[in-house]
Amino acid sequence: MIKIIVNGSLGKMGKVLTNSIFEDANFELIAGVSKYETENTNYKLYSNILDVKEKADVVIDFSNPESLKDLLTYSKKTKTPLVIATTGYNDDELDMIKEASKEVPIFHSSNMSLGVNLLLKLVEVSAKALTNFDIEIVEKHHNRKVDAPSGTALMLANEIQKVLNNTEFNYGRYGKDAKRKEKEIGIHAVRGGTIVGDHSVIFAGKDEIVELNHIALSKEIFAQGSLKAAKFIVNKENGYYNMKDVVTL
Amino acid sequence: MIKIIVNGSLGKMGKVLTNSIFEDANFELIAGVSKYETENTNYKLYSNILDVKEKADVVIDFSNPESLKDLLTYSKKTKTPLVIATTGYNDDELDMIKEASKEVPIFHSSNMSLGVNLLLKLVEVSAKALTNFDIEIVEKHHNRKVDAPSGTALMLANEIQKVLNNTEFNYGRYGKDAKRKEKEIGIHAVRGGTIVGDHSVIFAGKDEIVELNHIALSKEIFAQGSLKAAKFIVNKENGYYNMKDVVTL
Amino acid sequence: MIKIIVNGSLGKMGKVLTNSIFEDANFELIAGVSKYETENTNYKLYSNILDVKEKADVVIDFSNPESLKDLLTYSKKTKTPLVIATTGYNDDELDMIKEASKEVPIFHSSNMSLGVNLLLKLVEVSAKALTNFDIEIVEKHHNRKVDAPSGTALMLANEIQKVLNNTEFNYGRYGKDAKRKEKEIGIHAVRGGTIVGDHSVIFAGKDEIVELNHIALSKEIFAQGSLKAAKFIVNKENGYYNMKDVVTL
Amino acid sequence: MIKIIVNGSLGKMGKVLTNSIFEDANFELIAGVSKYETENTNYKLYSNILDVKEKADVVIDFSNPESLKDLLTYSKKTKTPLVIATTGYNDDELDMIKEASKEVPIFHSSNMSLGVNLLLKLVEVSAKALTNFDIEIVEKHHNRKVDAPSGTALMLANEIQKVLNNTEFNYGRYGKDAKRKEKEIGIHAVRGGTIVGDHSVIFAGKDEIVELNHIALSKEIFAQGSLKAAKFIVNKENGYYNMKDVVTL
Repeated sequence: MIKIIVNGSLGKMGKVLTNSIFEDANFELIAGVSKYETENTNYKLYSNILDVKEKADVVIDFSNPESLKDLLTYSKKTKTPLVIATTGYNDDELDMIKEASKEVPIFHSSNMSLGVNLLLKLVEVSAKALTNFDIEIVEKHHNRKVDAPSGTALMLANEIQKVLNNTEFNYGRYGKDAKRKEKEIGIHAVRGGTIVGDHSVIFAGKDEIVELNHIALSKEIFAQGSLKAAKFIVNKENGYYNMKDVVTL
Repeated sequence: MIKIIVNGSLGKMGKVLTNSIFEDANFELIAGVSKYETENTNYKLYSNILDVKEKADVVIDFSNPESLKDLLTYSKKTKTPLVIATTGYNDDELDMIKEASKEVPIFHSSNMSLGVNLLLKLVEVSAKALTNFDIEIVEKHHNRKVDAPSGTALMLANEIQKVLNNTEFNYGRYGKDAKRKEKEIGIHAVRGGTIVGDHSVIFAGKDEIVELNHIALSKEIFAQGSLKAAKFIVNKENGYYNMKDVVTL
Repeated sequence: MIKIIVNGSLGKMGKVLTNSIFEDANFELIAGVSKYETENTNYKLYSNILDVKEKADVVIDFSNPESLKDLLTYSKKTKTPLVIATTGYNDDELDMIKEASKEVPIFHSSNMSLGVNLLLKLVEVSAKALTNFDIEIVEKHHNRKVDAPSGTALMLANEIQKVLNNTEFNYGRYGKDAKRKEKEIGIHAVRGGTIVGDHSVIFAGKDEIVELNHIALSKEIFAQGSLKAAKFIVNKENGYYNMKDVVTL
Repeated sequence: MIKIIVNGSLGKMGKVLTNSIFEDANFELIAGVSKYETENTNYKLYSNILDVKEKADVVIDFSNPESLKDLLTYSKKTKTPLVIATTGYNDDELDMIKEASKEVPIFHSSNMSLGVNLLLKLVEVSAKALTNFDIEIVEKHHNRKVDAPSGTALMLANEIQKVLNNTEFNYGRYGKDAKRKEKEIGIHAVRGGTIVGDHSVIFAGKDEIVELNHIALSKEIFAQGSLKAAKFIVNKENGYYNMKDVVTL
């Protein structure tokens, strides 16, 4: 059984994660950390990770960039491997994470879904193999999503860009003279209803099409992905890891 | 057996159609009309429809707007029902067609595919039934297509507009502040490889999605659709008909 | 605001429905009925519908066949229109419902999802229009589903059977000599993960394909469908109605 | 420019291939071999490969097992690399091919489509990464296909079997008690219209789905794949190669 501390345990994703841990006999929640102290919880709750007395095998972090400093301090001091799922770090903070990973194993990904991370890998393999195929991305999300395209669609497009070079992203074709350029990647953001997340990468060649699709049905997959990451990192050497390391195994 | 004259028989679609007629025992090609006279054909070929001496049950026209006047003259004079699949008419020409349909049955559609025309009908029914659903269109075509979105995607969008009113077409979302508006219809033009034609209309509501999709695998479906139209119109009263009349039967 | 009594308010679907009513300003839950009396509820709860004193505009029933007699008695006596979403009735019970609908408007459907009911209508229209197309159904559900194919897949297949006659259902092709017969409808039951419900009807003809697909993302759509039915029936004449009446509007 | 001999040049696939070579400036057809000598060809035609006098860079074989012996004899004698796309070999013949590959580079695959071969690779990677996901295969072909499921669907299922062990193939679920077993792979053969070939591998896990899909639009992709193989093998060492070697590059 892997003992876990959840940093940010009363946030939206933190709540999903603590529930997932209670339902999975392979993991034990030994403490949560949250600045919201008012709620009753069925686990030991701290307002700051530096106060945690229990010894864990892994810390999983779904909090926010402000708590990064204490998180890294705790992890280095107690030699507890760390899974970071928080997003929105600036470059300085990203450097801090990488620096800390010299002293303790750190797993870091801005999308913890196992499926999406597999998709990144598959897209890389496919873009290398399918030379002269045209590549397009179609993503679908609910109608309240503010940004377009999704961060994940951009991650996928960047993965293709690494392989193909000199690609050009096109976020919408319109007009009498809108012919596709050779190195163009069309990225299409469909919005409607309550769609959680749907990403398709289309490779269209001469008379054949390969389409790689990922559908998220709930936010729980991000919790599950972080647990998979926890299991992966628990006995690793110091270093900076991400989902690709899990997926390529 | 239905006897057919093909106007424009040596054009791209005309050739597909004459082949389809030879392969179908329900139809007989009794004459073709083309301004290209040089080619050898295994059927009687005229350079102008007014010269045709054989009596047909239907004329199918895959030519161009310039030949419209002679076509209508012939059809009215000989009382031969007419299937018009040519595109690109201006308003005056459209009026001429409707005027002529008082004297002879005329079937007219800018997309002869039975499936696409069914899709138009299904989209109308669905847009009426699925109030408060968000509607988006994704179409896919080969990488040499010059215009975007496709004419068929616009036909579909206009069908929705007739039902919903005050819709706004959005041909590509991009940016930090690209949230979907309530009456918006996103129209997405995917381009790649040799895709013949693929149209999806997505109705996304609260926790359910209806998606209506049509895939064309070859240009032959337009020939088949015109033959279906020929069969439909052969014994009809004078009047102006289109694919919807066939589909709603 | 439409005043509603929920019969079976503490069952799985009943709970989803009462929550949906609380979140929708167009509806008011004035009473629930459940044989489970122990739970605390934030609405007036009765153990038998015949005891309900509040006057409602509609009763929505997500209970079980045993409570049918009392339900119909209450509805006829108080002239309250009725939406029945319960499944599993035998022929005698179905007759009782139809008989009662002469005295009070009754809406009855074994699948309250608006989308699925639209799909039934679209499939009927398509099967009539697309003569000589081959029709196949692919449905997908979670890996704990016991029966195959789904009841909804069978409803769709029966809708096709009504149009085409003499169809034959094929639940799985296998072997060296497994060629499709002309009047065959292949029905394929995919099972995996936590898929809530996905139904596709495929019409494949000569070089074109029409595919009609419905995806359910949660059980809430059945609650939403029943509210739509409630709104529909509230001012109708006595009679027996179903989702098709809503959808064809 | 790569000089090519096509063995079986007047068969169905041979004709597609010779046309593809004429249209591609990177390749030159220097001779064809066919037992059908009657047809006029716009290239040098032999009835037996042992008679060919022109020196080629590669031989591409789309013939039948009977011509294998002469093919290998020619290839070894002239040190001409060989691409074998013929299917239906027995075990002795497969051994002969492997034996010959010690003396000359031989590329052998029963499906020359680049996309399908990529799919095999992607499925292997995915099956390893997505532990505890349920895997199902849906394939679609035209209504004249005699066998079910397709050979390619079985190749995909075998690729999964190699990774997961102890899987059980299920070719159709039906009944009140048809719950999915844990190690089951459902393989579903949809048949309809003129569908050339469509293969989907579905990985369904807890609240997420990964779907990998390949669509063939014409037989030409098999010709294109064999040319890609020709380009790959032209300067390789002696040995036995297949599409996976191309795809994993």
